[in-house]
Amino acid sequence: MKKKKENNCSSGLKIIPLGGLEQIGMNITAFEYEDSIIVVDCGLSFPADDMLGIDLVIPDVTYLKENLDKVKGFVITHGHEDHIGALAYVLRDVNVPIYATRLTMGIIENKLKEHNMLKTTKRKVVKFGQSINLGQFRVEFIKTNHSIVDAAALAIYSPAGIVVHTGDFKVDYTPVYGDAIDLQRFAELGKKGVLALMCDSTNAERPGFTPSEKTVGKTFDTLFEEHKNTRIFVATFASNVDRVQQIINTAYKFGRKVAVEGRSMVNIIETAINLECISIPENTLVDLDQMKNYPDEKQVIITTGSQGESMAALSRMANNMHRKITIGAGDTVIFSSNPIPGNEKSVTKIINELLRKGADVVFQDAHVSGHACQEEIKLIYTLIHPKYAVPVHGEYKHLKAQAKIAESLGIDKENIFILSSGDVLEVSDKQAKVAGKVPVGAILVDGLGVGDVGNVVLRDRQHLAEDGIMIVVMSLDKVGGELVAGPDIVSRGFVYVRESDELIEEARQSVEDAIQGCLDRGITDWGKLKSTTKDVLSDYVWKKTKRRPMILPIIMEV
Amino acid sequence: MKKKKENNCSSGLKIIPLGGLEQIGMNITAFEYEDSIIVVDCGLSFPADDMLGIDLVIPDVTYLKENLDKVKGFVITHGHEDHIGALAYVLRDVNVPIYATRLTMGIIENKLKEHNMLKTTKRKVVKFGQSINLGQFRVEFIKTNHSIVDAAALAIYSPAGIVVHTGDFKVDYTPVYGDAIDLQRFAELGKKGVLALMCDSTNAERPGFTPSEKTVGKTFDTLFEEHKNTRIFVATFASNVDRVQQIINTAYKFGRKVAVEGRSMVNIIETAINLECISIPENTLVDLDQMKNYPDEKQVIITTGSQGESMAALSRMANNMHRKITIGAGDTVIFSSNPIPGNEKSVTKIINELLRKGADVVFQDAHVSGHACQEEIKLIYTLIHPKYAVPVHGEYKHLKAQAKIAESLGIDKENIFILSSGDVLEVSDKQAKVAGKVPVGAILVDGLGVGDVGNVVLRDRQHLAEDGIMIVVMSLDKVGGELVAGPDIVSRGFVYVRESDELIEEARQSVEDAIQGCLDRGITDWGKLKSTTKDVLSDYVWKKTKRRPMILPIIMEV
Repeated sequence: MKKKKENNCSSGLKIIPLGGLEQIGMNITAFEYEDSIIVVDCGLSFPADDMLGIDLVIPDVTYLKENLDKVKGFVITHGHEDHIGALAYVLRDVNVPIYATRLTMGIIENKLKEHNMLKTTKRKVVKFGQSINLGQFRVEFIKTNHSIVDAAALAIYSPAGIVVHTGDFKVDYTPVYGDAIDLQRFAELGKKGVLALMCDSTNAERPGFTPSEKTVGKTFDTLFEEHKNTRIFVATFASNVDRVQQIINTAYKFGRKVAVEGRSMVNIIETAINLECISIPENTLVDLDQMKNYPDEKQVIITTGSQGESMAALSRMANNMHRKITIGAGDTVIFSSNPIPGNEKSVTKIINELLRKGADVVFQDAHVSGHACQEEIKLIYTLIHPKYAVPVHGEYKHLKAQAKIAESLGIDKENIFILSSGDVLEVSDKQAKVAGKVPVGAILVDGLGVGDVGNVVLRDRQHLAEDGIMIVVMSLDKVGGELVAGPDIVSRGFVYVRESDELIEEARQSVEDAIQGCLDRGITDWGKLKSTTKDVLSDYVWKKTKRRPMILPIIMEV
Repeated sequence: MKKKKENNCSSGLKIIPLGGLEQIGMNITAFEYEDSIIVVDCGLSFPADDMLGIDLVIPDVTYLKENLDKVKGFVITHGHEDHIGALAYVLRDVNVPIYATRLTMGIIENKLKEHNMLKTTKRKVVKFGQSINLGQFRVEFIKTNHSIVDAAALAIYSPAGIVVHTGDFKVDYTPVYGDAIDLQRFAELGKKGVLALMCDSTNAERPGFTPSEKTVGKTFDTLFEEHKNTRIFVATFASNVDRVQQIINTAYKFGRKVAVEGRSMVNIIETAINLECISIPENTLVDLDQMKNYPDEKQVIITTGSQGESMAALSRMANNMHRKITIGAGDTVIFSSNPIPGNEKSVTKIINELLRKGADVVFQDAHVSGHACQEEIKLIYTLIHPKYAVPVHGEYKHLKAQAKIAESLGIDKENIFILSSGDVLEVSDKQAKVAGKVPVGAILVDGLGVGDVGNVVLRDRQHLAEDGIMIVVMSLDKVGGELVAGPDIVSRGFVYVRESDELIEEARQSVEDAIQGCLDRGITDWGKLKSTTKDVLSDYVWKKTKRRPMILPIIMEV
């Protein structure tokens, strides 16, 4: 057989994840065809354990900045931080229109307001089934289910073919609000022929099917029945509007009033009420201030803090630090959430605290995942039947698990691509290959600073955190180069100074001897004096304590 | 009914946990009767996330030091760090004999050797069934099962009655080495009458029965069969001698050679070989250096690092940082372990790394716990049938879960005591009550320093880690009180200085203006000048960056 010519491949469709692969969060993917680029999602991630002092992390969008004239818009799948959280930062450099469904846009607008960017950002709300034209692309929003209302999958039509991006999704045949995922549309697209499927991998390691959100409603009914005589707190994720709906439904059944506590949850619920994504029976929702007018067994407080966050409402209520409410003996606290990996210890901490206060704690069975398990992933692959598979959303192990599923469904191994952020995947009907690399990275946000904390600063923070700092100051005479004051040693985070007088004084003396020795030999070069100080002090301290504080010599000339 | 007089209660038996309650690790409990104190276990704990730079944590034993003449000895249940790890530190102040079973003592002796304390420490190896007399106490060692060989429960006989302390245990009817837990002896003691039971709570939240260690052996057989053609790595806990035995058994069946890698594991296996706690077929164990002489499918490497510890052998082998071996495509890595709470992220990180290198990773089903689940706890309670229950080993939620089990078995609620470290529980046949409090606490070990890092230093390290430090130095004229040099600003961990010239220079200028202002007004008090510097700089930096670096003014007089 002769090989066909493939000369149009390099001018085909390019799929370029700028973040979100091999990590949780920071989802952002560029799709490029000739003069057009569209960007799917623009999320943040939370700092890794070694990113000391960092508030959040956003993607490096140099590639978009360098191709600004091509970029037609942001197309957003749903309103979670890992899909929208970087928008307010990235828009400063890449100010293009945003397209999203109703609640997603509502949440985005809350953010833009906070950043005072509402007026300068073009936005368009898209309905499910509707398509928008963006340069060479057409993008259709398809209804899915997820742990937030109004989540969408995207069918991205390009001259090279159709790419389906699921966003975060699950298959819920009996969703709390709105319709089930539009499986018929997925099937139609599959029939038509889909070039590539980019499917959520979060739960790709888990066998079976994620239960319907509605099963949690039944659990609430049971739990409320079991705890008829106590005040009930339910901790859950701020953005899970359906969950809040179900808690309210059960509370209403049991004749309880409901208050919502925690700023992020209050904001989202207000937006959901305005957009009619949640329906609350009259006289059910009351202000937290009003709760004191009702007996305990008529109260439900829905709160943030299910991850054990120390500043969230639940922690404050458990630790007597909340202005209005304290959780104590007789109260029931239901965790309607699972610990996100990395938060296990802080969740355990708040559970211990609540139990110690005498509260009854329920921390199992009142939660279901918002992500598709293996059987749902198989369903989507079978309906879509793509030529190429590009697993997305997850760490490497999740992507790998989905790749195995795709293979088991008959997709050619060489048509499955586990990409890294920055990879340029060129896709055409004839061939797909990673054909290049664009610059990507994580930009650290610390307070108002965006990108001003990099590796050097982080390494310093890690060093300071580990063993503290010793500062050695001395003054040299401008003319004679003589030591006129110091060396003095000041330390922080190294050792409790009042009980270590001797150690510090001996250290000081060893530095003074070394510096005087240099000066006596006519060495007045500051670089040399500083390095001598570092060496002498570091050796001394290591010998005495087996620690390596940062050593910072400062010389003044007077 | 008349109340009986209870005048002998305060001179009864005192049970005083000096650590280990409401936390994982640092197990140490004093038992006191008149002029006699014995101490059960002397463990360390690993630093909490906010204990920056700390290596390990040991208990404050002030109470033992103050009652040194009473202390008769340490009685150790088993050789895990959380039960023996503080011995080498505590013995410096409380040098009394140690009593333990054979392997436990072997591991303790390794530690004492490292600290050069072998000669100065009295030790006695005790056999199961044997008793030792310690002042008013007699202590009997009873065979149990756990994830380390030679684990013991203790029957502590005092004039006030018998206390049974289970240590860490599970019920294994078919242990890999030695006998099953001595349930008959527990039953005999129960018949005789036991005053108090102190029982392991670690798994008290888990229903059912912990499977036998032998089930893991069968899993290895299956996994080795499935991966016949690859090199096999098994990562597990260094001290789990039975696990290593089973890996060796399966390797031998499949004609593979075995090497052990990781310093802590090599040490313990050597000790276990010397004490004949492990039996290795001839020509099966080979040196890691020799492995290159065998084909991949004839190799098994047992290694430390199953918790994702970045310096352990597994991480180094996965990251091309090991001198002898690199894990790559075609290798199989079996995690024979579960992540310890708090280590989930680091375990996931190493799994991702291994998968990315092309290795096949098995991280489920090749592990069983070493702790008793609910049905085993019920069995022990039913055999012992104690008057009082004092759940031990666990965080508050675990202790609470065991308390519920005890109650469900008919133990009076007021006879169940969830203690805090430092509580003095006075127990007699007639009554038990918390009758006082002794000083307890966590002493931080950092390098060679024991206790020289306290709250002040830790707070400084947290502050430095969060936002770094700005140091302001200036020299004042001794006579005229004039500014002769500076102020200069040096920062570390705050911001990347080369790109923030302007910020730093403006900050410097604002400090100079403020200081000059003070001096002009005749203010030369150093305290005032320093606080002015802090206020001005802190305000400026907050306004510009929304960060709060530590600010350290240093004034020199020349």
